[in-house]
Amino acid sequence: MSVDLNPASSFEQLKRIESSKLFQGAVIAIILLSALTIGAKTYELPPLAEQSLSILDTGITVFFLVEILFRFIASPEKRRFFRDGWNIFDTIVVIGSLIPLDNAEAVLLGRLLRVFRVLRLVSVVPELRFLINSLLKAIPRMGYIALLMFIIFYIYAAMGSLFFASVDEELWGDVAISMLTLFRVATFEDWTDVMYATMEAYPLSWFYYLTFIFLTAFVFLNMMIGAILEVMSEEQNAKERQQAHDERDEIVQQLHSVQRKLDKLTENMEQSRGT
Amino acid sequence: MSVDLNPASSFEQLKRIESSKLFQGAVIAIILLSALTIGAKTYELPPLAEQSLSILDTGITVFFLVEILFRFIASPEKRRFFRDGWNIFDTIVVIGSLIPLDNAEAVLLGRLLRVFRVLRLVSVVPELRFLINSLLKAIPRMGYIALLMFIIFYIYAAMGSLFFASVDEELWGDVAISMLTLFRVATFEDWTDVMYATMEAYPLSWFYYLTFIFLTAFVFLNMMIGAILEVMSEEQNAKERQQAHDERDEIVQQLHSVQRKLDKLTENMEQSRGT
Amino acid sequence: MSVDLNPASSFEQLKRIESSKLFQGAVIAIILLSALTIGAKTYELPPLAEQSLSILDTGITVFFLVEILFRFIASPEKRRFFRDGWNIFDTIVVIGSLIPLDNAEAVLLGRLLRVFRVLRLVSVVPELRFLINSLLKAIPRMGYIALLMFIIFYIYAAMGSLFFASVDEELWGDVAISMLTLFRVATFEDWTDVMYATMEAYPLSWFYYLTFIFLTAFVFLNMMIGAILEVMSEEQNAKERQQAHDERDEIVQQLHSVQRKLDKLTENMEQSRGT
Amino acid sequence: MSVDLNPASSFEQLKRIESSKLFQGAVIAIILLSALTIGAKTYELPPLAEQSLSILDTGITVFFLVEILFRFIASPEKRRFFRDGWNIFDTIVVIGSLIPLDNAEAVLLGRLLRVFRVLRLVSVVPELRFLINSLLKAIPRMGYIALLMFIIFYIYAAMGSLFFASVDEELWGDVAISMLTLFRVATFEDWTDVMYATMEAYPLSWFYYLTFIFLTAFVFLNMMIGAILEVMSEEQNAKERQQAHDERDEIVQQLHSVQRKLDKLTENMEQSRGT
Repeated sequence: MSVDLNPASSFEQLKRIESSKLFQGAVIAIILLSALTIGAKTYELPPLAEQSLSILDTGITVFFLVEILFRFIASPEKRRFFRDGWNIFDTIVVIGSLIPLDNAEAVLLGRLLRVFRVLRLVSVVPELRFLINSLLKAIPRMGYIALLMFIIFYIYAAMGSLFFASVDEELWGDVAISMLTLFRVATFEDWTDVMYATMEAYPLSWFYYLTFIFLTAFVFLNMMIGAILEVMSEEQNAKERQQAHDERDEIVQQLHSVQRKLDKLTENMEQSRGT
Repeated sequence: MSVDLNPASSFEQLKRIESSKLFQGAVIAIILLSALTIGAKTYELPPLAEQSLSILDTGITVFFLVEILFRFIASPEKRRFFRDGWNIFDTIVVIGSLIPLDNAEAVLLGRLLRVFRVLRLVSVVPELRFLINSLLKAIPRMGYIALLMFIIFYIYAAMGSLFFASVDEELWGDVAISMLTLFRVATFEDWTDVMYATMEAYPLSWFYYLTFIFLTAFVFLNMMIGAILEVMSEEQNAKERQQAHDERDEIVQQLHSVQRKLDKLTENMEQSRGT
Repeated sequence: MSVDLNPASSFEQLKRIESSKLFQGAVIAIILLSALTIGAKTYELPPLAEQSLSILDTGITVFFLVEILFRFIASPEKRRFFRDGWNIFDTIVVIGSLIPLDNAEAVLLGRLLRVFRVLRLVSVVPELRFLINSLLKAIPRMGYIALLMFIIFYIYAAMGSLFFASVDEELWGDVAISMLTLFRVATFEDWTDVMYATMEAYPLSWFYYLTFIFLTAFVFLNMMIGAILEVMSEEQNAKERQQAHDERDEIVQQLHSVQRKLDKLTENMEQSRGT
Repeated sequence: MSVDLNPASSFEQLKRIESSKLFQGAVIAIILLSALTIGAKTYELPPLAEQSLSILDTGITVFFLVEILFRFIASPEKRRFFRDGWNIFDTIVVIGSLIPLDNAEAVLLGRLLRVFRVLRLVSVVPELRFLINSLLKAIPRMGYIALLMFIIFYIYAAMGSLFFASVDEELWGDVAISMLTLFRVATFEDWTDVMYATMEAYPLSWFYYLTFIFLTAFVFLNMMIGAILEVMSEEQNAKERQQAHDERDEIVQQLHSVQRKLDKLTENMEQSRGT
């Protein structure tokens, strides 16, 4: 019975373990357990349950620490490991969990970092990672329309705080509070209460709200339509066009072949006439 | 006058009756009557009407029992009968209706099962059955995005109950209540009341709500766009592509025929030169 | 100076007047004037204005009566006139306006019918008529999904009035009131108030609301997606496919011409060999 | 060392400066600074900050004035300068800022015009200008559907103020107030409060609200679907169709070439037979 201490071989072994279904399943199970303990802590529990939860928490922290070290060792190139955003995210969440919860002031921060452990589920399940990546890709195309939205909100907020600050300091006190109030109006949340209050001082202020609602709704709608169209023309049609292109290529090739045969035939004919 | 007791022949007869327009119409009429009696019971009625309703209810229960036995006998293979989800559903609803309503405690349960009789309309009308089947098919494609949504809700709920439990025990007491509160925020239902309350203790908590709203709205929007695109590329284009393909096949076949003719011509020519 | 009393000729003249831009413009102007008088009557007016409004109203009624008689006479076939839904609609609105407003009880009905005069704008402006026709065409495709929605509402309403009638008679008293309450929940209008009230008696009733909201939202979303896809495949692609088909037809015709020429060539060749 | 006073050359220099990245960046920076000062003024500030803000404001006004003069001089054709909507907009905003803020009554107007300076960001950043142009193009296609919406609102408002004015003068007093109330109902903002109030006087008035909500939602939905389809068939397919057309053109040209070769061959053959 020989213990294999060959580093290359044990490295291979580590990689095999890391990418095995069983190991992946265990990691997912521990993350779900971690999520459950986070949830459980928000309930009032008997002291015994509290104690076992804190022991479990230490166990999960240790497991995650071991798992990330394991993955780091198993990765063939150490530099590449930290180029992957998901690895950096995992490392930060795990290191953050090491903050001791004894210090009363750090309790909230420590607990908050433990909450983010649930997000590790996204980095472990490939389908979720794919989904997040495709969502992140959708952000830049909304860049300029978001800027336009911000300009609309800023201008209306500046106007609102200019005119309505005297009506309701709580809602229109400064430009930041006004933007929050306008976001509320944009979600239709008790927006008429806000309007009726300002209409008492400025009877025509309904015009301010209606133009704001129409503008934001119109820009939002066009943003949505634009997003649908862009994604559609990008992804779906790429395949379709390729297929149509391939089929046309076949026709074109056959036509070339027909022409070559005709050329050969004409040549033959001319030779035949020459004889 | 001979009574046909041949079992095969009477089986055929049963099948014919079962699939007849008249029988189908009668079943639909009885289901609608059943729906009406369910509705009628929610109103205050004179004792006479109550009594006739309960007699009608017994009649409907008996009719449904007979109908399902009838369908069971009429089905050629008994095993297959219970493989069809709609048959199982019908059987459960009918058997559930047999629970006697005398027992005071079982009254609510018995009445509840009677309510589900209306759902039998879906299993009887083919168009509705088709609609439900196509809706059920749409569920799996929303699986991972629903999981992502749940993760977002869970993390925000854990954070919410961590910070805001001291502000309002009713809304942020534990992680389950917090998720319900967040669902309320996601539907924009008096969400500013919730926010203004927590902003008094944590003035920056607007950031929590705004990021939550943007995240959920963004994920929801992308889910919708994804669903539109997926269905579009699946159903609609399948037909179109087939048609385009068929038309291209015709062109390719004609080109093959042109080439064959050219080959024959060249062969002729060479034979002609050879002579 | 001869007055042309030839009926055929005066008929032609009527038709020419009826379809002239000027006449159409006058009708639209009178409808807009009619809309304004309807709006004006909702304000408190001095007696003089009231009187002139009622004179104006009589004038408009007479004009509309004359216009519809005019159109009736100008139409070549009298039977066809009443086959057009728009003509019937116009006639009912005009005849309805003839009800005298003296009778105190008929005042509201008479005024209501005057309000519908504004709808005549739709029947006069061709673009609006086209729009309405295309909207009407969209209704049948929503038929079964509307039926499904109704079944969902009915079942939830029956369940709601079964369990919650004791909690709030105003909201869940009978199946009809419950359906109205559920429609309110579906529009997210103060739905949490409704839920919190029933959760005091039935702590698990949040399940009822959440499943209802998810079901209706899911069905609604799929209905919307279905509508988009159906319209898309119908209208837009029809043109496109026709165009692609025409272009392919050209290719196929050219290929036929190539084959004919080849056949002729082969025939020539064989004749040439035969000589 | 010669100073170049050649006007043509200095004109070229101006143009080069105007279109340089540095100059564009400076203009954007000043606009952002201007936006910040507008926002800052909505907060309560110490007198020193107030004074420096007003000096900054004068500086920005002067900068904008110089910049627009600069651009005017740098433009090759003076007439064309004022044909561009963006230039007119910029000029109005800049001239509007020149109104002195000393006059107490003009303060609000002057401040309002300073708020619109933020909109200059749109005219300076090309991507935003492109976005606005494409949004403006989307307006006309919504023209008739907006008219239809207005007719629906007007008729329901007239009916509402006819029946419900006696119930709540504040909400249904006249046709204009009723339209505002209906817009509130269309946004689902506390619409049941409005309905429950009128249902006490007219128990069947729920029918009024439900038909209104269904009508507006249906028209809105169809408008959205129409917009998606129109944009889709316009922009996206134009490119695609062009590509497919080009590829088909290639096939057709090759077929022409095949036919020409065949014609030549047949001619040769006939000549050969003739000899």
